[in-house]
Amino acid sequence: MKKQNDGERVEGLSIAYIGGGSRGWAHTLMIGLALEERLSGAVRLFDIDFESARVNAAIGNRLHDRPDAKGKWRYEAVKTIGEALTGADFVVLSILPGTFTEMHSDVHTPEKYGVYQSVGDTVGPGGAVRALRTIPIYAGFAESIRKYCPDAWVINYTNPMTLCTRTLYETFPQVKAFGCCHEVFGTQEDVAEMLRRFRGIEGVDRGEIHTNVMGVNHFTWIDRINYKGEDLMPFYREVAEKHAAEGFCRESETNWMNSYFTSMNRVKFDLLRRYGLVAAAGDRHLAEFMPPWYLKDPETAAKWKFSLTPVDWRIAERKKQDERQTRLVEGREDLELRQTGEEGVLQIMALLGLGDLVTNVNIPNIGQIEGLPPGAVVETNALFSRDSVRPVYAGRLPGDVQSLVMRHVLNQENLLRASFAGDRRLALNAFAGDPLLSGLDIAQIEALFGEMTRNTKAYLPEWCVAS
Amino acid sequence: MKKQNDGERVEGLSIAYIGGGSRGWAHTLMIGLALEERLSGAVRLFDIDFESARVNAAIGNRLHDRPDAKGKWRYEAVKTIGEALTGADFVVLSILPGTFTEMHSDVHTPEKYGVYQSVGDTVGPGGAVRALRTIPIYAGFAESIRKYCPDAWVINYTNPMTLCTRTLYETFPQVKAFGCCHEVFGTQEDVAEMLRRFRGIEGVDRGEIHTNVMGVNHFTWIDRINYKGEDLMPFYREVAEKHAAEGFCRESETNWMNSYFTSMNRVKFDLLRRYGLVAAAGDRHLAEFMPPWYLKDPETAAKWKFSLTPVDWRIAERKKQDERQTRLVEGREDLELRQTGEEGVLQIMALLGLGDLVTNVNIPNIGQIEGLPPGAVVETNALFSRDSVRPVYAGRLPGDVQSLVMRHVLNQENLLRASFAGDRRLALNAFAGDPLLSGLDIAQIEALFGEMTRNTKAYLPEWCVAS
Amino acid sequence: MKKQNDGERVEGLSIAYIGGGSRGWAHTLMIGLALEERLSGAVRLFDIDFESARVNAAIGNRLHDRPDAKGKWRYEAVKTIGEALTGADFVVLSILPGTFTEMHSDVHTPEKYGVYQSVGDTVGPGGAVRALRTIPIYAGFAESIRKYCPDAWVINYTNPMTLCTRTLYETFPQVKAFGCCHEVFGTQEDVAEMLRRFRGIEGVDRGEIHTNVMGVNHFTWIDRINYKGEDLMPFYREVAEKHAAEGFCRESETNWMNSYFTSMNRVKFDLLRRYGLVAAAGDRHLAEFMPPWYLKDPETAAKWKFSLTPVDWRIAERKKQDERQTRLVEGREDLELRQTGEEGVLQIMALLGLGDLVTNVNIPNIGQIEGLPPGAVVETNALFSRDSVRPVYAGRLPGDVQSLVMRHVLNQENLLRASFAGDRRLALNAFAGDPLLSGLDIAQIEALFGEMTRNTKAYLPEWCVAS
Amino acid sequence: MKKQNDGERVEGLSIAYIGGGSRGWAHTLMIGLALEERLSGAVRLFDIDFESARVNAAIGNRLHDRPDAKGKWRYEAVKTIGEALTGADFVVLSILPGTFTEMHSDVHTPEKYGVYQSVGDTVGPGGAVRALRTIPIYAGFAESIRKYCPDAWVINYTNPMTLCTRTLYETFPQVKAFGCCHEVFGTQEDVAEMLRRFRGIEGVDRGEIHTNVMGVNHFTWIDRINYKGEDLMPFYREVAEKHAAEGFCRESETNWMNSYFTSMNRVKFDLLRRYGLVAAAGDRHLAEFMPPWYLKDPETAAKWKFSLTPVDWRIAERKKQDERQTRLVEGREDLELRQTGEEGVLQIMALLGLGDLVTNVNIPNIGQIEGLPPGAVVETNALFSRDSVRPVYAGRLPGDVQSLVMRHVLNQENLLRASFAGDRRLALNAFAGDPLLSGLDIAQIEALFGEMTRNTKAYLPEWCVAS
Repeated sequence: MKKQNDGERVEGLSIAYIGGGSRGWAHTLMIGLALEERLSGAVRLFDIDFESARVNAAIGNRLHDRPDAKGKWRYEAVKTIGEALTGADFVVLSILPGTFTEMHSDVHTPEKYGVYQSVGDTVGPGGAVRALRTIPIYAGFAESIRKYCPDAWVINYTNPMTLCTRTLYETFPQVKAFGCCHEVFGTQEDVAEMLRRFRGIEGVDRGEIHTNVMGVNHFTWIDRINYKGEDLMPFYREVAEKHAAEGFCRESETNWMNSYFTSMNRVKFDLLRRYGLVAAAGDRHLAEFMPPWYLKDPETAAKWKFSLTPVDWRIAERKKQDERQTRLVEGREDLELRQTGEEGVLQIMALLGLGDLVTNVNIPNIGQIEGLPPGAVVETNALFSRDSVRPVYAGRLPGDVQSLVMRHVLNQENLLRASFAGDRRLALNAFAGDPLLSGLDIAQIEALFGEMTRNTKAYLPEWCVAS
Repeated sequence: MKKQNDGERVEGLSIAYIGGGSRGWAHTLMIGLALEERLSGAVRLFDIDFESARVNAAIGNRLHDRPDAKGKWRYEAVKTIGEALTGADFVVLSILPGTFTEMHSDVHTPEKYGVYQSVGDTVGPGGAVRALRTIPIYAGFAESIRKYCPDAWVINYTNPMTLCTRTLYETFPQVKAFGCCHEVFGTQEDVAEMLRRFRGIEGVDRGEIHTNVMGVNHFTWIDRINYKGEDLMPFYREVAEKHAAEGFCRESETNWMNSYFTSMNRVKFDLLRRYGLVAAAGDRHLAEFMPPWYLKDPETAAKWKFSLTPVDWRIAERKKQDERQTRLVEGREDLELRQTGEEGVLQIMALLGLGDLVTNVNIPNIGQIEGLPPGAVVETNALFSRDSVRPVYAGRLPGDVQSLVMRHVLNQENLLRASFAGDRRLALNAFAGDPLLSGLDIAQIEALFGEMTRNTKAYLPEWCVAS
Repeated sequence: MKKQNDGERVEGLSIAYIGGGSRGWAHTLMIGLALEERLSGAVRLFDIDFESARVNAAIGNRLHDRPDAKGKWRYEAVKTIGEALTGADFVVLSILPGTFTEMHSDVHTPEKYGVYQSVGDTVGPGGAVRALRTIPIYAGFAESIRKYCPDAWVINYTNPMTLCTRTLYETFPQVKAFGCCHEVFGTQEDVAEMLRRFRGIEGVDRGEIHTNVMGVNHFTWIDRINYKGEDLMPFYREVAEKHAAEGFCRESETNWMNSYFTSMNRVKFDLLRRYGLVAAAGDRHLAEFMPPWYLKDPETAAKWKFSLTPVDWRIAERKKQDERQTRLVEGREDLELRQTGEEGVLQIMALLGLGDLVTNVNIPNIGQIEGLPPGAVVETNALFSRDSVRPVYAGRLPGDVQSLVMRHVLNQENLLRASFAGDRRLALNAFAGDPLLSGLDIAQIEALFGEMTRNTKAYLPEWCVAS
Repeated sequence: MKKQNDGERVEGLSIAYIGGGSRGWAHTLMIGLALEERLSGAVRLFDIDFESARVNAAIGNRLHDRPDAKGKWRYEAVKTIGEALTGADFVVLSILPGTFTEMHSDVHTPEKYGVYQSVGDTVGPGGAVRALRTIPIYAGFAESIRKYCPDAWVINYTNPMTLCTRTLYETFPQVKAFGCCHEVFGTQEDVAEMLRRFRGIEGVDRGEIHTNVMGVNHFTWIDRINYKGEDLMPFYREVAEKHAAEGFCRESETNWMNSYFTSMNRVKFDLLRRYGLVAAAGDRHLAEFMPPWYLKDPETAAKWKFSLTPVDWRIAERKKQDERQTRLVEGREDLELRQTGEEGVLQIMALLGLGDLVTNVNIPNIGQIEGLPPGAVVETNALFSRDSVRPVYAGRLPGDVQSLVMRHVLNQENLLRASFAGDRRLALNAFAGDPLLSGLDIAQIEALFGEMTRNTKAYLPEWCVAS
């Protein structure tokens, strides 16, 4: 069935979901699509674990006949990426590069060297090694997209977001890809809740909090917060100052001590005090981009009121998710169709011409951030309209923030170059440039890199692994 | 009274209108403001012809008590620019540089040399000499704005739009200024009418026709036309091809043979055929940016179905406007409050935080058009939000169009430099570079420049006038 | 025999000469090589006219045993470009794209439309059509160089110089190529003679006249002339002013009325008066880059004291050259080994590490000229040293000169794009953008382009020729 | 007496020497000038310690009548900077910002925090605080130069070289200034000695070792070493590998254990192994630009075979110099006129038109290094000719080296901005960004910055000092 677009609704849309066995974001997408009555079509799920994709297909198809599902979709698990991509209008990329075994090494091996990470999937030693695993996979995706659906729009959700997106463009420069991340939305939600709690303004939607965003994914900075006619930066600064010690989180969020995903924004408030801008990602991400000021050890992290997410917890969590998958497939549990305003669906609609949208997105720098290198994947606002994503000029970071961001931009570019060239020396130098390793000397850094690459060699290119 | 902004409405807004004696755009602004219930405040009108400003103030104030005027405004004519600007939140610039005497020379002196112009206020010999009169005036405006209201937003309507805006930034780089022009909207309205006439789709608003715009004012080019889910470029091309010979105009427009402002878009359709993009301004403007292919002589223009606007007609028209001003002041006639969706008012509201807006605007190039010089004032879409105008990345012009546009960009930059430096040789070289003078040899060009500058010397800097 | 370089002399050098049947520059190279005792080796001559190459090889080999030939070289004509290029350390490109038949059309067909050209091989209608013939040939050369000798240095002498060099880089970005032209040297020689004639300083070598050069080939501009401790710009200006009417040429030059290559620099002096810089090429070239101010008709050219070179004269001249070739081969005449300081040989020596050299050269713009597009081939000084040519920062052209130059830069870029894309519309638009065609309307331009491409279709890609 | 330049020699040259009381470089300049027969004139010495300047003037004037002094110069100590600068053709800047007391704190206070520096005048905590003292002084110099001798050429020798030069341009953008440093020459001399020692080639002059240089002062990198026809990079790599453990120094150099200025190049060889390029400064400087890999503690430095220069040693040394000054003034000792090929004098001669020169120099980046920000002061080769210094395009640093260099470029730019804006927060952030402080946490960094600024507050702007 060919896509039909009458300007009000689109039928017969074709979406390829690579990594379609996912237990998390797959549901979010299914729910988002089911809630949107103006779209319908088919989703083809591809995963190297075919069975997981098959389970998700079954779950998705259960939605079709539910009366509360306004968008009607068919889900199908396919065995090759080519089947998934052929004819796709949109491609969703959301994979786990490697397994929890590799992730365990990414996150915990550095601890033997006194280096702690709260997430370990973006920068830091864990992010770097994960990138070395991911780049070749994404180069492959780009080749497949070039071959099977060169005109499709590609939405990436995988971390490290910046390098995944960058790899797509490096391999296939004409690719229509962008990276989509929810961290900035969290900051907007914080502001909405601050307005409620400290000003008594109820019902503010995060979409009403307009921010100007610049930086790289998970290390974006906001220099403007507008709400209706008001500049909210002074208000935010005031809240941040007053709550510098105890911190702040939304009521909906679990207490940070019981949650590996919540924080109290104390790192964010401290960065605001030091650098003058609002860093728009969770503290767990932000801390990893800085020298180990906030991540010296678990006690320091606890003092700043955020957690280090242990991979063992993720493994336990996965078990629960698997059980839930079974319940969902067997109909013992149903997906709850609750409006989330899922950005991915809004972006798809805008790209189909169903309404312009300005939102933050990760794409190559073509001048939207002055002072960062052209071609580097950066995060700013962009205008989404029919078949186009155009960055909105965001400005120039203050010199001290630019310096923090540039360091990662160049490290990431070096990881990319190293990966494409198979240049272990360059990979090591990029690894060594990460600020989280500031306290190690070069011999320790070399030993750590050796150990981490050996630990994860099953999923790494050969040149990368120390003999 | 200080501005009050509760995010829903703004009271006590202060607008300075320089050139406030205008018979045309002053009414448009008054009507736009009266129709917008979310704004109220005061407008101070300044004009070197104080009496005209006083008349407009009286006309404006008559609106205040009309029940159909939802926005309540007070108008006051002031005798100095300082009074107008002090405390202004917005500054509107809309002047006539010189008098009809100078305009007469701009437009008609070149005819003695076989050079014809349809408007003569943007480029061509008339535009160049008008620029040389205008730049020093605008340098003065910029100095006054720096002194009296450096934080105000400045909206320019005067031609030559590009050089007026450029001069403001050259003089006062922190100025928050942009140039606003309606020509692109005309093209959007054409498309809406084409949809009605050739596809039977009624009620399309020009705001639903999304275009990507790039170029310089009056010589902007559209490479994307979206309407809901559809790319309308093929449709537009088809219409243009079919109507290449007879042309096309909206039904609301007066027959071009009876109007000095209407055209049949034959030039636009021919440019589309030659260059592949839609040139988004009236044919009268477009023709002036090209070599004299469409303006060889009045017969050629007539063949292309557009008119040369004689300045005598403007003088006669002015007389009628003056009579109408008297009727309006005396209450023998009333301004008609009809919704026009005046862009200026929408822009003001967006800048106040009352709703984001993406629209085309003239501001310095900071990368929104690749391949044109940084700093040159260009026209593209921009995102208007509270206290900011951020260009949206528009792309790169096709090489042949870039060449056409670049020539004017460099000529205009040279006129600016010449004016700031008092360098007659450079001014002459910029003048000589205009494509409308392609058929003259250098001796004729020098003679023409001498004659035009002598004719208008009352309003020109001394260095500029041939002895 | 492998190249041996002991830092004092290089033996076993291998040079490929493409277009090696040439009657002119081949001799210059042979003489230059014979005079340089520090170099020796082999030259392989390739030409689509093998016989011409064979004749030149014979002439070259006659030099070997002459006692006044200090550099010892063996010449060999080869039948394929691969044989010529394999193992080459240097590649010399010097071809005639097409025959005199095509050149005749390039130069003289436009005369039917009232358009006159003095040379017709660089810009203007003749230059454009010649470029359309040449670009595909040069794309082929670049592919061959990539295949057979990717590390060789490539020296281009063919016109249009800019587009030949640009095509090499477009096709094979890693090519080590530059374009070499003698026009700037002529200006330096003029200055040396002015010093002699008007100041009585004897024996000044052109190498002592240091100039800063910027522009594109045959349209380069000098803003600095230094001789020892002195800025000679005031002196040059004074000479130019005094000789504006009668002009100036070197005593060694033939009277311009009897020569198709000499001029009296009246155009150059007029450009200096108008634009403030010294245009550093012969008037015959300069006039072609401007609107037809100096080339309105043959009488105008005569008034400016330069000639239009008829192709019939070139044909007659060729006959004489052929006769001379025979005499040279048969030993009835000998090449005269006279020191010319041939720049090509000096450049080769510098690239071999035998002495750094700063000289003007045509290479892609990487910032040596601010304000011209990156990648465009421009002419400035560069530092030649062992295996590298690095441009010296030249500055920014004055705005009015930049505008003149930019027009050609963009036209040339458009010709290149048109040629690579097979886009006739773009080729026509680039052709139409040439200032020499300023006086024509678009219908005439189209007719001329059609006629010229039909005339030369034997050597043009098919898409280019009007049906 | 006015300057007379006949192209062979220049008489009546006027040089202003700011910091003219110096015991070191003043002699070098005097000797250089005395040895150059083609120059003569007057040097005016200004120093805030007038007596020191007076002593140097006396020493300089003693040279005048010595028969071995071929260049004849008069020296005069003056009491105001205006007297020194008025009429100057060249300005030499060579000062000590503050006293040894401040230098002591720069170098040794960080040791209390476990941070060691070998020099402490360029980057690192010492370099940063020294910069904060120096920038305001240099802003004053620039204002004086603008006032008294805007057309003079300004040669800076003071450290931090980059920020001194940068400040001159920031304050007075038209200044004709460059920074001159001898560190690269040392590397060239190393190569010459390597050729002698390992290849038996005697008598190689460092001028014959052609290098391509890129980076910032004291952290420049060489990617090409040419000697006659040979690429010496493989040779250098081989030497570096073989001597990685024991190191290498020139025979003329004092054993590093007895000298605070000599090193064994072990750091340089290690950087070559890791990054692939030759870092062209002494190890004492290089180590300070890296994380504390080579400067963890004095033992680590000793292992790498270089010394930390204690300021007490400098104080003792100064005493000896003072005694020598007395001997020189009283004629009990004479300056030895030995050919040093002092670069400063060669640069002066080239700028006077007495011979072009390509040498490395510190000037704002206008594209000579791709990938570093425009305007940042960088070190590359440049072409010196009459009244101009034009950078030669140097290329792009490999990504990993670019990252190392960029970090300092941005830190230095932030120090400049902080100093001009009086922004202590920004100054602290720049300070905190220095890699030598990698091992400290932010509280320690703040404490160190507070202590260092309090220690040196006599010479710091007030805003900079912690209360």
